[in-house]
Amino acid sequence: MTVSAMSATPKKSLKLFSGSSHPELAEEVAKQLDVTVTPQAAYKFANGEIFVRYDESVRGCDAFVIQSHCNPLNDAIMEQLIMVDALKRASAKRITVVMPFYGYARQDKKHKGREPISARLIADLFKTAGADRIMAIDLHTDQIQGFFDGPVDHLMAQKLLASYIRDTYTDEQITVVSPDSGRVRVAEKWADDLGGTPLAFIHKTRDPSKPNQVVANRVVGDVEGRLCVLVDDMIDTGGTITKATEQLLAAGAKDVIIAATHAVLSGPAVERLSSCGAKEVVLTNTLPIPEERRFPNLTVLSIAPLVAEAIHQVFEDGSVTSLFDGRA
Amino acid sequence: MTVSAMSATPKKSLKLFSGSSHPELAEEVAKQLDVTVTPQAAYKFANGEIFVRYDESVRGCDAFVIQSHCNPLNDAIMEQLIMVDALKRASAKRITVVMPFYGYARQDKKHKGREPISARLIADLFKTAGADRIMAIDLHTDQIQGFFDGPVDHLMAQKLLASYIRDTYTDEQITVVSPDSGRVRVAEKWADDLGGTPLAFIHKTRDPSKPNQVVANRVVGDVEGRLCVLVDDMIDTGGTITKATEQLLAAGAKDVIIAATHAVLSGPAVERLSSCGAKEVVLTNTLPIPEERRFPNLTVLSIAPLVAEAIHQVFEDGSVTSLFDGRA
Amino acid sequence: MTVSAMSATPKKSLKLFSGSSHPELAEEVAKQLDVTVTPQAAYKFANGEIFVRYDESVRGCDAFVIQSHCNPLNDAIMEQLIMVDALKRASAKRITVVMPFYGYARQDKKHKGREPISARLIADLFKTAGADRIMAIDLHTDQIQGFFDGPVDHLMAQKLLASYIRDTYTDEQITVVSPDSGRVRVAEKWADDLGGTPLAFIHKTRDPSKPNQVVANRVVGDVEGRLCVLVDDMIDTGGTITKATEQLLAAGAKDVIIAATHAVLSGPAVERLSSCGAKEVVLTNTLPIPEERRFPNLTVLSIAPLVAEAIHQVFEDGSVTSLFDGRA
Amino acid sequence: MTVSAMSATPKKSLKLFSGSSHPELAEEVAKQLDVTVTPQAAYKFANGEIFVRYDESVRGCDAFVIQSHCNPLNDAIMEQLIMVDALKRASAKRITVVMPFYGYARQDKKHKGREPISARLIADLFKTAGADRIMAIDLHTDQIQGFFDGPVDHLMAQKLLASYIRDTYTDEQITVVSPDSGRVRVAEKWADDLGGTPLAFIHKTRDPSKPNQVVANRVVGDVEGRLCVLVDDMIDTGGTITKATEQLLAAGAKDVIIAATHAVLSGPAVERLSSCGAKEVVLTNTLPIPEERRFPNLTVLSIAPLVAEAIHQVFEDGSVTSLFDGRA
Amino acid sequence: MTVSAMSATPKKSLKLFSGSSHPELAEEVAKQLDVTVTPQAAYKFANGEIFVRYDESVRGCDAFVIQSHCNPLNDAIMEQLIMVDALKRASAKRITVVMPFYGYARQDKKHKGREPISARLIADLFKTAGADRIMAIDLHTDQIQGFFDGPVDHLMAQKLLASYIRDTYTDEQITVVSPDSGRVRVAEKWADDLGGTPLAFIHKTRDPSKPNQVVANRVVGDVEGRLCVLVDDMIDTGGTITKATEQLLAAGAKDVIIAATHAVLSGPAVERLSSCGAKEVVLTNTLPIPEERRFPNLTVLSIAPLVAEAIHQVFEDGSVTSLFDGRA
Amino acid sequence: MTVSAMSATPKKSLKLFSGSSHPELAEEVAKQLDVTVTPQAAYKFANGEIFVRYDESVRGCDAFVIQSHCNPLNDAIMEQLIMVDALKRASAKRITVVMPFYGYARQDKKHKGREPISARLIADLFKTAGADRIMAIDLHTDQIQGFFDGPVDHLMAQKLLASYIRDTYTDEQITVVSPDSGRVRVAEKWADDLGGTPLAFIHKTRDPSKPNQVVANRVVGDVEGRLCVLVDDMIDTGGTITKATEQLLAAGAKDVIIAATHAVLSGPAVERLSSCGAKEVVLTNTLPIPEERRFPNLTVLSIAPLVAEAIHQVFEDGSVTSLFDGRA
Repeated sequence: MTVSAMSATPKKSLKLFSGSSHPELAEEVAKQLDVTVTPQAAYKFANGEIFVRYDESVRGCDAFVIQSHCNPLNDAIMEQLIMVDALKRASAKRITVVMPFYGYARQDKKHKGREPISARLIADLFKTAGADRIMAIDLHTDQIQGFFDGPVDHLMAQKLLASYIRDTYTDEQITVVSPDSGRVRVAEKWADDLGGTPLAFIHKTRDPSKPNQVVANRVVGDVEGRLCVLVDDMIDTGGTITKATEQLLAAGAKDVIIAATHAVLSGPAVERLSSCGAKEVVLTNTLPIPEERRFPNLTVLSIAPLVAEAIHQVFEDGSVTSLFDGRA
Repeated sequence: MTVSAMSATPKKSLKLFSGSSHPELAEEVAKQLDVTVTPQAAYKFANGEIFVRYDESVRGCDAFVIQSHCNPLNDAIMEQLIMVDALKRASAKRITVVMPFYGYARQDKKHKGREPISARLIADLFKTAGADRIMAIDLHTDQIQGFFDGPVDHLMAQKLLASYIRDTYTDEQITVVSPDSGRVRVAEKWADDLGGTPLAFIHKTRDPSKPNQVVANRVVGDVEGRLCVLVDDMIDTGGTITKATEQLLAAGAKDVIIAATHAVLSGPAVERLSSCGAKEVVLTNTLPIPEERRFPNLTVLSIAPLVAEAIHQVFEDGSVTSLFDGRA
Repeated sequence: MTVSAMSATPKKSLKLFSGSSHPELAEEVAKQLDVTVTPQAAYKFANGEIFVRYDESVRGCDAFVIQSHCNPLNDAIMEQLIMVDALKRASAKRITVVMPFYGYARQDKKHKGREPISARLIADLFKTAGADRIMAIDLHTDQIQGFFDGPVDHLMAQKLLASYIRDTYTDEQITVVSPDSGRVRVAEKWADDLGGTPLAFIHKTRDPSKPNQVVANRVVGDVEGRLCVLVDDMIDTGGTITKATEQLLAAGAKDVIIAATHAVLSGPAVERLSSCGAKEVVLTNTLPIPEERRFPNLTVLSIAPLVAEAIHQVFEDGSVTSLFDGRA
Repeated sequence: MTVSAMSATPKKSLKLFSGSSHPELAEEVAKQLDVTVTPQAAYKFANGEIFVRYDESVRGCDAFVIQSHCNPLNDAIMEQLIMVDALKRASAKRITVVMPFYGYARQDKKHKGREPISARLIADLFKTAGADRIMAIDLHTDQIQGFFDGPVDHLMAQKLLASYIRDTYTDEQITVVSPDSGRVRVAEKWADDLGGTPLAFIHKTRDPSKPNQVVANRVVGDVEGRLCVLVDDMIDTGGTITKATEQLLAAGAKDVIIAATHAVLSGPAVERLSSCGAKEVVLTNTLPIPEERRFPNLTVLSIAPLVAEAIHQVFEDGSVTSLFDGRA
Repeated sequence: MTVSAMSATPKKSLKLFSGSSHPELAEEVAKQLDVTVTPQAAYKFANGEIFVRYDESVRGCDAFVIQSHCNPLNDAIMEQLIMVDALKRASAKRITVVMPFYGYARQDKKHKGREPISARLIADLFKTAGADRIMAIDLHTDQIQGFFDGPVDHLMAQKLLASYIRDTYTDEQITVVSPDSGRVRVAEKWADDLGGTPLAFIHKTRDPSKPNQVVANRVVGDVEGRLCVLVDDMIDTGGTITKATEQLLAAGAKDVIIAATHAVLSGPAVERLSSCGAKEVVLTNTLPIPEERRFPNLTVLSIAPLVAEAIHQVFEDGSVTSLFDGRA
Repeated sequence: MTVSAMSATPKKSLKLFSGSSHPELAEEVAKQLDVTVTPQAAYKFANGEIFVRYDESVRGCDAFVIQSHCNPLNDAIMEQLIMVDALKRASAKRITVVMPFYGYARQDKKHKGREPISARLIADLFKTAGADRIMAIDLHTDQIQGFFDGPVDHLMAQKLLASYIRDTYTDEQITVVSPDSGRVRVAEKWADDLGGTPLAFIHKTRDPSKPNQVVANRVVGDVEGRLCVLVDDMIDTGGTITKATEQLLAAGAKDVIIAATHAVLSGPAVERLSSCGAKEVVLTNTLPIPEERRFPNLTVLSIAPLVAEAIHQVFEDGSVTSLFDGRA
């Protein structure tokens, strides 16, 4: 028997897909990669059901599906799940879910009994839908990487933010401040990046006779006369971070810079941030910040080059870790 | 060695849980069962994330989690997924997801290439979250039962609806009509339930030179001078069903009754239904119908007794099938 | 350290495998693809156990395993499962199960309580054995695609059959007829393909005092003096379709053409079809039709070119959907 | 809040189900347990598809599904898989698959490259269908227990068979003989049970210049003038065991008794066994032996009491191991 | 048909199993529960393979398998995995893995690229072996609960330790100190439990020109003249905690109390702890502390009552959360 | 839209990884393949926890992870599991676990009730960690291949060992001897490889009145005056094999050669082997044999060329089976 098989040299092909929550970011990433976002039909039925169909063949492609989980957040998540399902059934070769902001990341543990661990649930839902890999930026805690049963490329915006601050406030005496006791380690990494600055944090004290009620916030650490850089992974309603700003200023801080990756900016956030007395608020565009929610002392850095570079490395079997000096 | 184990007689305990989409139905079911809905903390964070915590122990219980997937539908689904996750982690013994209306049921197949099969995805998501069983009412197609890897109790409202119509329109000459070619079988079952009436359906013709465009709707079957009962599983925007009503009347029907299980009633549905010329619109409360969306010729039958009886049978290891004369 | 890895450019290689149920079709497909069916040892032990061994290495290949589920059907299924298991253990890279006829497709839902959903079971069994993908032709219902957790290439023979009929009966006044109420939608698609013809179907009426017994079959729709094209996905014993033929002729149809994809042709089918009065019976060779079961008014169209083209597209990461104008 | 749950004391209920391959055994087991086999509708469609429906509710029951895998063996396996699927979907609480004869047990390893391991496949198929547990008798090799991901109750007929032989041939000088080199260990266990008798086996020698061809069979061990008890797990076509009988007699054995658990008895087995010169052939009824395949020197022992006792122990959370003096 | 099933009232039976790493704790728990540890054969083969066999039937029991992961830690883990496998195969009804110390909990995230997340791996391994539930004490981070796909009962020793310190040092001015920046939140919870004390932590500063090297440790917070309670989840080699002790004393602390749950006490730990200047070291017996590793200022509190109470609640479907005032 | 994807030609890259148990073998394999072992950081924490990090990117590579399961065996297994987890999370494309000696292979079945089947557990643990494939040498029984749900490349050292013996003892009259009744089939394969020699085995007789106690060992088969080649898969403590040697010599054997693949050599093995009277002991280096455990009549053959060749075939999609003349 002479001929029994048909042979060919495989090609690989990167395709970018974008959900409807933050198309500007996807477009910017596409531009950096010199590709176009794959065209698709996508709409919402009158009763809220989401529908997606791709307009061209996706068979065998290396698919990257970008969706930021912004409000309406459950729509964003469900749309991305449905996009993954459609890709799986249409024979995409590999599916990487890109979540610039990972929804429900804060619910990464049970604070009390009979709570969900929704951050794990999200990881499992994407696995079930057909995701092979996840790419995310500044997860609320590093442990979330372990919630997914597969590779997670964890990108960090800290370098981007810290560089900006280092370059902008070259000659200041900086103290890095964590807004609460749970993120002091993160602040410590910032302190290293800013050249070994001192650290401080806000300590919430409780009165044992009045459970579940914060009695007072105390600044622990040395902040007087210094430029305080208040760091966090996200700013949601901004309550904690702006109260911290006021306390730092009351405790004698010279100035306060707020720096965070994820601009959730819900409800009163914009008003609070623009009036809290912070000299500058530095955020990235992992989430969309519409014009009407921008305010004078806000600086937005683009995360797109980082995402594009990471996608490129993943596609080319390069190293993502090396983009962060080995950190993960 | 004399004593090595601790023995006990197990108890089983039914607990009812309700998502926030349709609490009235859950309350009604609870009342029928003579239990109370298990109290819980549930709220939405400013950015749209949903949170749930149960206020009392659920360990070892036989949990029934009721949630209708109404608009905002993705919130309803995600809330129910999160409730299941919390129950699983809190050691509920068995979790039955009760979906009076099963979201995305219409996307039960690919109409064109590169589409998702979202109805299967939904089944898988609940399985992943921890659901052991599903209970649903009048699934869009029976095959959806096969999408879940486990028992599905499929309840049918047709008997409830058909009884009402039989009792109300005793002496009429009825023709059962399917609003399109895809649900003629369902109409045939109705015809049997109403005593062997004639059948008709609306046939959409297309012009081959103008693809994807309906040219005309033709009534196939005998409707002249008869009371037409137009049946469907759900009414969403009501376009198809009200247009069919008009065509039936134009074709000489004496009167038209619209009967359907799921009152999605999106957008223009209320206006269309109240002005289409139908004598009566008979629906159930699998989905909430707020006062302001009720109209004069609307009749709403309660599905709660059926759901309660089915839950009771499941808890007591009785028969659900017997509630429907063996049908499934 | 200079050298740490061995590099190479991957090759991909298509291999075709055939079970023993319908080797002629596999050979025809192979010929279209210009490959040979991979040689294997396959036999049945005296007690009915099936054994398979491949005669050449299959490591790393893109395997397509063709088997029609014809009688003895459980042998055909088990043989295909075993072939998949052997391929998985022998390191085939990707395994596509090609089922020209998908056994148990009719058991795609529970008609009554305590029934299996065997069509889902079949999908799960192949997944368990190691199938990555499924290719099937004219599934009994489209929802079956959703039973498999992975890509399903759903090929449609309707275009092939309809073209033949359009070309053969150019000047006839055609009505497309569904043999029962459950397949009117399918008939509607045919009507579109044949240029927007009228529709009809056979309605089974039941006497409510005699449950589960069909009292009469009524033709719903206009058939008098027209060429009726009776369409179905499969013909098993032929009872329904030939009785429909007789009723159409009795109702004044000029002629009846029977068209279906799957020639199951069990028991009395051949006699019924050849004597029912139909002018022509048009089928495909998804199932083997031995010489002795062929009859004068039978036309058999070959499905092999379609299967071969689809396999080629899958192997080359092309588009299968495009073979069907986007339908799926 | 005073009432929030409904409480009850659970009941457990054993139900026995029987496939169609060996109803006599199921009936005998049922009688021993003082239950009746659960009634069901079961038939085969004209094209070979099997259908099953249970006539009464099975919700919450502890189901035992008996099916011997006899010829047509793939039908028997598929019927049992479908029965399990129906039980799972009908909410049986626990499903134990009882396989008096486990089909494909001989294909428990790859003898050459690119072979399946069908015995593992069978275990996985039942797991997929919904089996929680397996009960089997005298598996071809003990390792098959490890193929199932869950509990396997492995019953042994050896004690039953050995007791019979010990009682019948009290005063004989016995040598236990393995028909080939692969089952000498099993023969050694028999030798222990029969009081420490000598052992022998048949050694197949091959000529290295003629690969895959047995040149001669040599008796290894002392058999002259002794009553040889030739033991095996199953007798299929009987070729090996009857040839061994002849060689033992030629080597001077006084008499030969053949003892095996599974009476596959394919093709020429009956003729071979009745004419090979063996004084007695002792088998069990794990597989049906119809009247016309019984022969004068055949003795059939019933396995039903053992199966019934094991089922009873499983249902009552007793010990199955203790039925076999701790062996497994 | 009158009789078709056998009925019975189920019993449930708690059985306790103990690995070989810390039998004293298991015995103490057993005594609290008034049961005996289930007897088993367990030994190590000469090449290091572990073997286990239970001496009595475990069928249907509610199994709790206690094993502390102490050195040789991989042996402890593998023994527990094997115990679970044996229970699963022997038909235990439910298997709860009790890990007073959860091995590899520190590897709960990737610190750098290409690292494992071993804490997740451990959770998956136990799931695979057959564990239905996990019970653990003071996990290194709360997120580890989310690594297991099922219920985790997370017990906390903090209340036990804090009560002891509160009762022993009633009149002292306490500052709670975290030994590093990553556990300040935990220290904050301690501060609450001790009545709202101040907080401090040790900040490791790095010189950016010398990456990965700690330049200095600074005490952040007010410790002068106060009784510092240094808290941690575990003490391994004791380097960090004893260096912190010295720094606190150098910074003017009146006295230092070290409190931690897990007494890993590897290598130089004992010497360091006994000579670091701490007034008292308070630990629990989640890990065995042999006599020869005990030192004068060491206090060991027993965790057994807590574990026993939690097991009892799990068995009786009570509430574990309530043991910790709702915390989880 | 003109550009929507980025295309590239994929590369594949083989990388070799070595655990710490037997680096010499990995180095030798690497040399044969002309690659270097991928550098990694690996150490053991003070409490026994193992840590691994790869020093260079492994993204997209075809990873082969070599680890022999030698004492401390559980450390070796856990290290390999952790290495696989790290590779999976770092996006290796395919992971083949190479186990020259497969730990726990002897526990491949339940000898008595309530035992684990640890060999299956091991297969499942590696699957869970992320292994796609397994490569092993001379598994204790062939059925173990079926324990893994995926491809297993089963290499055989018998040809290597048998060639050596054939070449060394050309003119001897050889009898192949199995040390017990369970491995006579293996001895038969040896006999074929050595040119069709006679067979013998050692039969352990038990006294039925003294259960579980071996009364005597009888040589079954003809050994007098012949060179006996005693074959086994592994030598652990050497008790069985050296006792067999003595019995063969006592039964008149001219000389005894011991041949086995796996040199476990625990405890008294070295002393027993060097003093049992065997003329030569032939082993391979699947396990490390340190200098101090080597003895005069020991011959060690290297398995590295075989492993290297198999890895090469796997990488290049060649045939492994062909290395063993089709055997598996």
